[in-house]
Amino acid sequence: MTTGQEFNRDTNYITTRITRDGAEGYPVEPGRYRLVVSRACPWANRSIIVRRLLGLEDAISMGVCGPTHDRRSWTFDLDPGGVDPVLGIERIQDAYFARFPDYPRGITVPAIVDVPTGAVVTNDYPQITLDLSTEWARYHREGAPQLYPEHLRDEIDEVALRVFKDVNNGVYRCGFAGSQESYERAYHRLFGAMDWLEERLSKQRFLVGDTITEADVRLFTTLVRFDPVYHGHFKCNRQKLIEFPALWGYARDLFQTPGFGDTIDFDQIKRHYYVVHEDINPTRIVPAGPDLSNWLTPHHREQLGGRPFGDGTPPGPVREGERVAAGHTPLAQA
Amino acid sequence: MTTGQEFNRDTNYITTRITRDGAEGYPVEPGRYRLVVSRACPWANRSIIVRRLLGLEDAISMGVCGPTHDRRSWTFDLDPGGVDPVLGIERIQDAYFARFPDYPRGITVPAIVDVPTGAVVTNDYPQITLDLSTEWARYHREGAPQLYPEHLRDEIDEVALRVFKDVNNGVYRCGFAGSQESYERAYHRLFGAMDWLEERLSKQRFLVGDTITEADVRLFTTLVRFDPVYHGHFKCNRQKLIEFPALWGYARDLFQTPGFGDTIDFDQIKRHYYVVHEDINPTRIVPAGPDLSNWLTPHHREQLGGRPFGDGTPPGPVREGERVAAGHTPLAQA
Repeated sequence: MTTGQEFNRDTNYITTRITRDGAEGYPVEPGRYRLVVSRACPWANRSIIVRRLLGLEDAISMGVCGPTHDRRSWTFDLDPGGVDPVLGIERIQDAYFARFPDYPRGITVPAIVDVPTGAVVTNDYPQITLDLSTEWARYHREGAPQLYPEHLRDEIDEVALRVFKDVNNGVYRCGFAGSQESYERAYHRLFGAMDWLEERLSKQRFLVGDTITEADVRLFTTLVRFDPVYHGHFKCNRQKLIEFPALWGYARDLFQTPGFGDTIDFDQIKRHYYVVHEDINPTRIVPAGPDLSNWLTPHHREQLGGRPFGDGTPPGPVREGERVAAGHTPLAQA
Repeated sequence: MTTGQEFNRDTNYITTRITRDGAEGYPVEPGRYRLVVSRACPWANRSIIVRRLLGLEDAISMGVCGPTHDRRSWTFDLDPGGVDPVLGIERIQDAYFARFPDYPRGITVPAIVDVPTGAVVTNDYPQITLDLSTEWARYHREGAPQLYPEHLRDEIDEVALRVFKDVNNGVYRCGFAGSQESYERAYHRLFGAMDWLEERLSKQRFLVGDTITEADVRLFTTLVRFDPVYHGHFKCNRQKLIEFPALWGYARDLFQTPGFGDTIDFDQIKRHYYVVHEDINPTRIVPAGPDLSNWLTPHHREQLGGRPFGDGTPPGPVREGERVAAGHTPLAQA
């Protein structure tokens, strides 16, 4: 975070791409790369969802960092001995330093690590999920959805841009504002965009076209954190998500769709924000609310039509070893 | 606040009473005393409501402190020159020191000041409102309601005791908890009591009997602050007030009753908590939400029967000079 009045996200990422032709030195190759995430992080959550929707579990393994961390960023504290079993490291920063010994910017998730060298290939999260859809198509499961179909890319990009600026990043601009004025600017932009989305989603089941796309994935990961975290912790409190009829129905529709809600660990999400952001929550006490059982209530969004997976099918059950702990989600995942 | 794990309210007040017989040196006498309040404070808010319901404006004048203050407590910063026009002081602590030069405890509102000596008579807020109902009866307006009728006192006292421990003070025990464990204990007690109140108020219009009583005044001042402050700032977030159908209807019923909502300054309430409690809101940024226009929506509580003022009548319009600023309330008070 800068020390100025407005929160400005550092958007200088490691932009190396993993491609079919290997033009940047890292060819698509099943078993070679490890996706490192934290379930708490909305940017990483996108890649967890897309990997599962597309059935890339065998092609790309996944390492999961714990929800809280210190100034040196995310650690593998959930793993036995605090060490990622594939990369053999305790901190994801070690994989950044393996690529660039003096790496000066934020140590972030998601990051894709080249397992043979232990070096981060990319942490460029918007490109990561698009490349999973396009460059990795050969390794998708049978029935995988088209999350970034060519004929809808312009519209997906356009919607996703406003969602990014005003919503995904907008909630952070509220929470990390350095002044009352910059907070209020961010707040009004956020809720202006929420009103626009509410209107749009009152007439159509999904954001673009009549199937789930990348645009839905990107909005979902913010919506699912809205009432548990952003409403109180980031002061995004004009109203709760559950007070937007269309958005709340839409969010539940996705939550109840295989590949979305089954990636959500509400316990880790809450602990991450309330414990790590000591500058806005010095007590580090994590709220006990809100009640989350309402995520499983009927949403009636089928009445708007739409075919969630298009000509494809939903993914099967979550793999053993990748399931969210039972007490951390209202979903039963036995 | 103590430095321990649990928040313990200092309940040692100046308990001198103003009585008809003047047994404690301060007889009931119109024009002699000044009630000092802040509109932000829920404990002071009780006395503002009761004074107005009973029509004691001519008998007891009112001084209003601003919503924010420093370690030396409440000031008359809303008055021209920052000086109370009757008491001639800038800080209410001066009236405490006029009574006890070494006064060691919290400088709180409400406080009733003896104007001739400039000394605080009492800051014992639970007794203050009861005495306004009983000791000052001779000076009530025509049609004043019976807020503490003899035949209901046991029930009022009993209900008010649980409301005090688990709700009025319970929200502070959540917000000022010194540990995750003490927070969660307070949270569960608070929402246990909220569920009990929801159940009780789903079958009857008011808390005790079929008219407004002291018990309603005491619950109202906490409910009105619930969504704007306690839900986020104090982490009382199992659900919002508006998610309790009976309690939300009840709160709006009272808000729309003359003497209740017209004492509420939402702007001052929010600024008080978010600016003064720097230990839990270090940025001192005040949330722009929630939307408050819903306080004026129909509540349909008349269907439960009840006679708000019993054999009495509602108070007339708020006096000039005592009105809440138009931008600080959804009520039109032109």
